[in-house]
Amino acid sequence: MSEKVGFIGLGIMGGGMAANLVRAGFEVTVWNRTASRMAAVTDLGASAAGSAREVAERSSVVLICVSDTPDVVAVTEGPDGILAGLAAGSVVVDHSTISPSETRRLAALAEEAGGSWLDGPVSGGSEGAELGTLSIMVGGEASDLERVRPYLEAMGKTITHTGPVGSGQMVKLVNQVLVVVNMLAASEALLLAEAGGLDLDATLSAVTGGAAGSWMLANRGPQIIARDWRPGFTVDLQQKDLRLVLEAADELGVPIPGTALVFQLYRAVQRRGLGAEGQHALVKALEHMAGVKVGEAPR
Amino acid sequence: MSEKVGFIGLGIMGGGMAANLVRAGFEVTVWNRTASRMAAVTDLGASAAGSAREVAERSSVVLICVSDTPDVVAVTEGPDGILAGLAAGSVVVDHSTISPSETRRLAALAEEAGGSWLDGPVSGGSEGAELGTLSIMVGGEASDLERVRPYLEAMGKTITHTGPVGSGQMVKLVNQVLVVVNMLAASEALLLAEAGGLDLDATLSAVTGGAAGSWMLANRGPQIIARDWRPGFTVDLQQKDLRLVLEAADELGVPIPGTALVFQLYRAVQRRGLGAEGQHALVKALEHMAGVKVGEAPR
Amino acid sequence: MSEKVGFIGLGIMGGGMAANLVRAGFEVTVWNRTASRMAAVTDLGASAAGSAREVAERSSVVLICVSDTPDVVAVTEGPDGILAGLAAGSVVVDHSTISPSETRRLAALAEEAGGSWLDGPVSGGSEGAELGTLSIMVGGEASDLERVRPYLEAMGKTITHTGPVGSGQMVKLVNQVLVVVNMLAASEALLLAEAGGLDLDATLSAVTGGAAGSWMLANRGPQIIARDWRPGFTVDLQQKDLRLVLEAADELGVPIPGTALVFQLYRAVQRRGLGAEGQHALVKALEHMAGVKVGEAPR
Amino acid sequence: MSEKVGFIGLGIMGGGMAANLVRAGFEVTVWNRTASRMAAVTDLGASAAGSAREVAERSSVVLICVSDTPDVVAVTEGPDGILAGLAAGSVVVDHSTISPSETRRLAALAEEAGGSWLDGPVSGGSEGAELGTLSIMVGGEASDLERVRPYLEAMGKTITHTGPVGSGQMVKLVNQVLVVVNMLAASEALLLAEAGGLDLDATLSAVTGGAAGSWMLANRGPQIIARDWRPGFTVDLQQKDLRLVLEAADELGVPIPGTALVFQLYRAVQRRGLGAEGQHALVKALEHMAGVKVGEAPR
Repeated sequence: MSEKVGFIGLGIMGGGMAANLVRAGFEVTVWNRTASRMAAVTDLGASAAGSAREVAERSSVVLICVSDTPDVVAVTEGPDGILAGLAAGSVVVDHSTISPSETRRLAALAEEAGGSWLDGPVSGGSEGAELGTLSIMVGGEASDLERVRPYLEAMGKTITHTGPVGSGQMVKLVNQVLVVVNMLAASEALLLAEAGGLDLDATLSAVTGGAAGSWMLANRGPQIIARDWRPGFTVDLQQKDLRLVLEAADELGVPIPGTALVFQLYRAVQRRGLGAEGQHALVKALEHMAGVKVGEAPR
Repeated sequence: MSEKVGFIGLGIMGGGMAANLVRAGFEVTVWNRTASRMAAVTDLGASAAGSAREVAERSSVVLICVSDTPDVVAVTEGPDGILAGLAAGSVVVDHSTISPSETRRLAALAEEAGGSWLDGPVSGGSEGAELGTLSIMVGGEASDLERVRPYLEAMGKTITHTGPVGSGQMVKLVNQVLVVVNMLAASEALLLAEAGGLDLDATLSAVTGGAAGSWMLANRGPQIIARDWRPGFTVDLQQKDLRLVLEAADELGVPIPGTALVFQLYRAVQRRGLGAEGQHALVKALEHMAGVKVGEAPR
Repeated sequence: MSEKVGFIGLGIMGGGMAANLVRAGFEVTVWNRTASRMAAVTDLGASAAGSAREVAERSSVVLICVSDTPDVVAVTEGPDGILAGLAAGSVVVDHSTISPSETRRLAALAEEAGGSWLDGPVSGGSEGAELGTLSIMVGGEASDLERVRPYLEAMGKTITHTGPVGSGQMVKLVNQVLVVVNMLAASEALLLAEAGGLDLDATLSAVTGGAAGSWMLANRGPQIIARDWRPGFTVDLQQKDLRLVLEAADELGVPIPGTALVFQLYRAVQRRGLGAEGQHALVKALEHMAGVKVGEAPR
Repeated sequence: MSEKVGFIGLGIMGGGMAANLVRAGFEVTVWNRTASRMAAVTDLGASAAGSAREVAERSSVVLICVSDTPDVVAVTEGPDGILAGLAAGSVVVDHSTISPSETRRLAALAEEAGGSWLDGPVSGGSEGAELGTLSIMVGGEASDLERVRPYLEAMGKTITHTGPVGSGQMVKLVNQVLVVVNMLAASEALLLAEAGGLDLDATLSAVTGGAAGSWMLANRGPQIIARDWRPGFTVDLQQKDLRLVLEAADELGVPIPGTALVFQLYRAVQRRGLGAEGQHALVKALEHMAGVKVGEAPR
């Protein structure tokens, strides 16, 4: 018999995730700061609550998917937050990408309240949220993960237990370092190819399959060449995640000069008003410096 | 009926490549600056010449595989070089990784001598050279490539025509930008994972299959965790190729700040006497700054 | 007739500054979180209060000199903070180096309480604090500055009005960008000189007076050559200020890649346990990478 | 009694330097690749030669001031070069900024020819060349320097003996590291000041005199604020010198990540067609990324 599930945060990601929970037949109570966004999932059969606290009061498993660390803090603490309504024995799963150290602080508060906390940041973009094909990196007690696994499986395809509380967030930050520095690699490579007069499609097919290959090159490379800037993941969200990465690296004393460089370059993209474009718009920061655009030479 | 094939340069790469040509049944004449290295292939049936010029005199297809731009210049120009012995209608294929602009100069000289020039840098490491599984990126006339294709197929698995003379070298440089910046990504990511107390194997398996994935992460990541520094490709060779990349980017006016950063970091690895280790020893430059080693925390 | 002056924060900087106020004949009330540090100034004639609020209750001009943004917030807000005791018409001057945007928030709170706020970060180090030769960069109303000028002149030699509230902090951050990137310049230059076998003293005297000159080169260069790491300003404090710089640049959307690089390099110095050394220990991050130490070659 | 002096290279720098030698009463023979440029100094009383070799044949002291390493090689070696005409006992002084290692090679050739070589790169710009106020950094034998000192004093104000042959060039490269990284510091600082809404003149006057001060800030800062891009030293020449710096650092194994970053940023300035502007146009690379121009906000 399944538990009553709560879901807080119905944005681009959370909306699709909550819908998949409802479609899988679970009894779901939702809340979103902007109330109008609840209609899409209540139309599918979810019931709406009046606050995060009320979601917690009505559920034994509470899922969160909001934007950033302060948002998770806001829906968790305070008189109308989750902790104010959390029953002993309940589990909170935070699918937002936030600070690992702040995650550990919130988990301790949940434990004091008699509940438990899993961090479960996701990757796979809004498309993955809609199709239920997300990757979910889960930190916390293995037994808690087993308990909530049926709900996670309604939303994601790959569920990885990464270790203790906070480790899911840390793995996600590691993931983001790879994503952006691989993106930098693809950007510099394509710009050199362009300036060197190469046939870009032939170049991609010559290098993608070997030691130079990456998901970013294979998937965002063709988008760059086609100058298609539709986002899988936006520049603005990427920068928000990089702030978390840089903050964690600072706390841990780890030098990450490549990531720090990308953060500065993305800022140039944002300043040109392109923060809502896809993360591969990174190349525009370099194009601008070079006075050359990938894919625009006559061939 | 096959042509007489010459091969100049029997180092780590060239030795295996020439051996594969002989094993495939072609009539091969070889020359190497250090004469003792010729024994391995003459034992297989190749004949030894006394100079690069003599190789050219005896062959209608001359393959080169030496270290760097000045080495190719040395075996091509001068009284004992290939051009001094090249018959009209012969083809030179340079498998070394060298400067694209110098390649175009040498190709013009070969044309003046009545021959033609293909640049055919390879990737796949010494293992690929031995097994005949190299990727070969070929710049030059398509008809010349068709003529030499049987010999290239004895040495490589993937033969890509990249465009006019010099384009093979340029694609190779693009490849190297990707290789080293993806390596930087893997290094920073693993260091953050280590300092963040993550289970490294679990982290790799959580991120390698998704948007963060790359050949470098999948193949060199486990080597780093195991602290196995045996080279597929050495730090010293990587730096030599990066000098070509930086030189080409300077000629073309393209800013590649990420690649420039890696070049500075690899220098720190070389200064510690680790230039003969694999390219993944890049992580040691960062480890040293962090005072943390990937894979050495008690777990 | 002078006003009653309060002083909160008697650390390395604040201790000397408060002592100079007392010596100048002003009536001073002090408070410090660690009470034992108050003795040095009460011995000179200051009176001790039991809280920041009590300082505010007893004074019409309240000076603050603590470490970082959260420390200023802590002594300003809350039941025992300055604002709880501030009389209408009083002026607060914050000599700490903190966030410009947080400064503006606190200034608005002070105004709501009927008082006013000046930000007055200082430069000149602990020596300047003791000798009363600090430079003080003051943001806020010119009339408020005129009112407190006699007290600032007891502590500093150069008092500059920089503009509205927050501008003093912003000028200080600009100052810190210059300080650290000039320090990077001196570090790379001296390392190149060392590796190039130059006579370091002769090199310094050849370049310091011309277009290459800077305060850092002239003052910290000889210290580096002598391997004298005593701090004017420590690495740890420098990093704390750089965090403020990076945060402000992020808020303002300004790319500062050089400063971002220095921040990563200083981290390597901190990781080696050298955070209490002087800011010129930056060179050690590069020395370590180079395997060469400035000033240690036999000459 | 003074010797016969030859001068090779009458460009922006050499033209003024040779004129000062003539005006000081020395007997001067000149040669310049573009013959028309010789008129200005022959009008003053110098005599023109037909080649660098002829200059050497007619002089016992031969001064060179050309653009780059290959230019010095071109006027030194070959059938019409200095060495072909150099009498035993003659001294060559190279005032160009070129490679230290190539300098040592040329000095050895001069010695074989029975002469000697001093490297004497200058700083002070075209204005210093005209006014005779250059700084000259001289590497080589002290006795050779004493012999040529009267001629150097006709051209420069500060003559520093830096050590053995090549050390003058190395000190010049150290100088250039300082110049460009201090320029980066000034650029990032002014951009932060601009974006932070500061009064730029007040900011400069608050920080220039203290620990943040540098020649670049004091002299180029006001030019940047006034958007006056007239060169003391052009971006293109700066890049040419940085190539020498990066090459020397590579040979010596020294990581100079800050200088490497500036080199990438200057490239962006060159790509925008601004290579003939002053070195302080570096700020434009960052302005472009930031979408903000220093000194253009309404104030």
